[in-house]
Amino acid sequence: MIYLDNAASTPIHKDVLTEMLPFLSEQYGNPSSIHKLGRTANKAIQNARKQIANLINAQPNEIFLTSGGTESNNITLHGFAYAKKGNHIITSSIEHEAILEPCKRLEKDGFSVTYLPVSSDGLVDPTYIKNAITKDTCLVSIMFANNEVGTVQPIKEISKICKEKQLPFHSDAVQAVGKMPIDVRDLELSAMSISSHKLNGPKGVGAIYIKKGIKIEPLILGGGQENGIRSGTENVASIVGFGKACELAKENLQKNIVHLKSLRDSLVSKITSEIPHVSFNGNREKRIPNNAHFTFLGVNGEDLIIKLDENGVAASTGSACSVKIQKASHVLKAMGFSHEQITGSLRLTVGLSNTFEEIDTTVAILKKVVKELREVSPFKTKYGL
Amino acid sequence: MIYLDNAASTPIHKDVLTEMLPFLSEQYGNPSSIHKLGRTANKAIQNARKQIANLINAQPNEIFLTSGGTESNNITLHGFAYAKKGNHIITSSIEHEAILEPCKRLEKDGFSVTYLPVSSDGLVDPTYIKNAITKDTCLVSIMFANNEVGTVQPIKEISKICKEKQLPFHSDAVQAVGKMPIDVRDLELSAMSISSHKLNGPKGVGAIYIKKGIKIEPLILGGGQENGIRSGTENVASIVGFGKACELAKENLQKNIVHLKSLRDSLVSKITSEIPHVSFNGNREKRIPNNAHFTFLGVNGEDLIIKLDENGVAASTGSACSVKIQKASHVLKAMGFSHEQITGSLRLTVGLSNTFEEIDTTVAILKKVVKELREVSPFKTKYGL
Repeated sequence: MIYLDNAASTPIHKDVLTEMLPFLSEQYGNPSSIHKLGRTANKAIQNARKQIANLINAQPNEIFLTSGGTESNNITLHGFAYAKKGNHIITSSIEHEAILEPCKRLEKDGFSVTYLPVSSDGLVDPTYIKNAITKDTCLVSIMFANNEVGTVQPIKEISKICKEKQLPFHSDAVQAVGKMPIDVRDLELSAMSISSHKLNGPKGVGAIYIKKGIKIEPLILGGGQENGIRSGTENVASIVGFGKACELAKENLQKNIVHLKSLRDSLVSKITSEIPHVSFNGNREKRIPNNAHFTFLGVNGEDLIIKLDENGVAASTGSACSVKIQKASHVLKAMGFSHEQITGSLRLTVGLSNTFEEIDTTVAILKKVVKELREVSPFKTKYGL
Repeated sequence: MIYLDNAASTPIHKDVLTEMLPFLSEQYGNPSSIHKLGRTANKAIQNARKQIANLINAQPNEIFLTSGGTESNNITLHGFAYAKKGNHIITSSIEHEAILEPCKRLEKDGFSVTYLPVSSDGLVDPTYIKNAITKDTCLVSIMFANNEVGTVQPIKEISKICKEKQLPFHSDAVQAVGKMPIDVRDLELSAMSISSHKLNGPKGVGAIYIKKGIKIEPLILGGGQENGIRSGTENVASIVGFGKACELAKENLQKNIVHLKSLRDSLVSKITSEIPHVSFNGNREKRIPNNAHFTFLGVNGEDLIIKLDENGVAASTGSACSVKIQKASHVLKAMGFSHEQITGSLRLTVGLSNTFEEIDTTVAILKKVVKELREVSPFKTKYGL
């Protein structure tokens, strides 16, 4: 199988699994226990916290472990909203559902939320943020890189505006961390969400970076783990794996970027030159290195995915996270795509283990499959496909 | 090492790890992806859901996967409170922090909470529940078995009262599931929290049973996984492990109960007969089979744990979940224990892999260690230790 759905989830790196295994067998202590087994588990967590912090140039005590990116986003929105410094939030219209849905709830609860528009290549205009800020604004939350089209936002410019207005700035960086250099100090972020399984770590674990000195209201309460920000017995093995994945991502960052980018660029150039009536979407330059997003005129993306799957290629129409609901992508809508364009979309996201041979095979399969689908497309005559 | 802290966490059963491993290596699909890898992950989750449901005689669609017991409790309290059928909650004074802390927050948010007292052996009197119910009550939440002293509550009687008043009844059954037969249909529970790592499954995963037909307000929002009750990419490997742990717990339930109970009873009879000035706490009969809780007069429990650890025995003073905060147990306080009694407490919780030889060794070590500590105790003369 050729796996080109790395934005949905990535394989666990073998060195990550090796680090995890002791904590899935003999090292089964609860990190809160004061005996040796407990202390060993606790030490392992603190080590992972350092590895995670290192990847983004944070301090270990600025890393709060969660059950994943979705929870990190939920904690952040709830946490800043109920820190009660204002009742207005600014975000974009192309955020992940894990931002948009909590925002909708906050609206029901009396908060006001501004959903900023984006350009046709998925960029938020920092001027719009500046203009949207009111005296009631308590948080700006703009994603780092979009999960569907891969566009990377002007985080530093946005950060500068927020700093001027002394506003906290959060970024959902689930798709960006491990795929581009990110330095939270340099970017002056207040908070940032990270997910382990998007960077070759295990599922079910993630983190929030929260800048030292910022106090937020916790969402999940109990025994007071994670300095009171996130209670619950720590998921030791997965945290250890997450830490190792971050260490590997840091060590190999430049090498990985080059590899992913060449694979992706080869995919894009071959698809756009060998298949007619196809457009490559999102910003060309401001883009994470692993993402390629296309629109195939007259083709239904769902049919395309199924045909590709039958031919051994794993791909996606867009987000994997909108489960079982066949609804049109809000991201592409916000980018001004027509219903037909949205329907014909395909996301191919490369990973560390993909090869150039796989890219060539994929292009050949895609060529064949798109042709077959266009043969029976209701738009065949209309567009001369 | 002799591990007698199974209420804090349990070792992962080897068959559980075997089931998990494919999902930590080649089966890395996101269950929401529609390609083969995604479908395989999704199928594995649905299978686990059945295994979890089977253990407690629920339907698979009544099982909602979470990141653990703490989150399950938080979702339940938030979920029933904000379903907005009333603003009064009844619970007990000996619940886990993962119930008490969310209750305290609900109080800040305008809800009223009744914390029922317990008897000296840790039992809630169902009559008190009956008397506490008002027209505003929207939830009764009483734990199944206490995490410190092991007392099992009269769940069926409480359930009957709630049914008469048409009130939802939730039980935090984290310490009970897998250690005693639990049939949610027979008990007529509305909701129940379960944790995987307390029954020889992995950490970082749990579930809530929610009776079919009951609608609660979700806490974590996003892609709509778990039927909208708990968004976020599913922790596939851990869910698979949790499922297998439940299957094993069901298959071996009677055998395990007999084994745990004989180990525990041997521990209790030897400690109480061979060591002077010791009391065995909690209810003698209404008790989970793995828990033994003692008070050693004139001994500091913390010192005891450290000495036991030095001698190769892993134990606890009470809950492992109250991290780093050296505060007196609210459970023992509610049971009417004096400060001195609380200080001298020790929890020993046996597990499936413990042996009778280990019990004998533990008693010998404990005898020696208690003697040593009493030699230097400030209460030595006062109590004639």
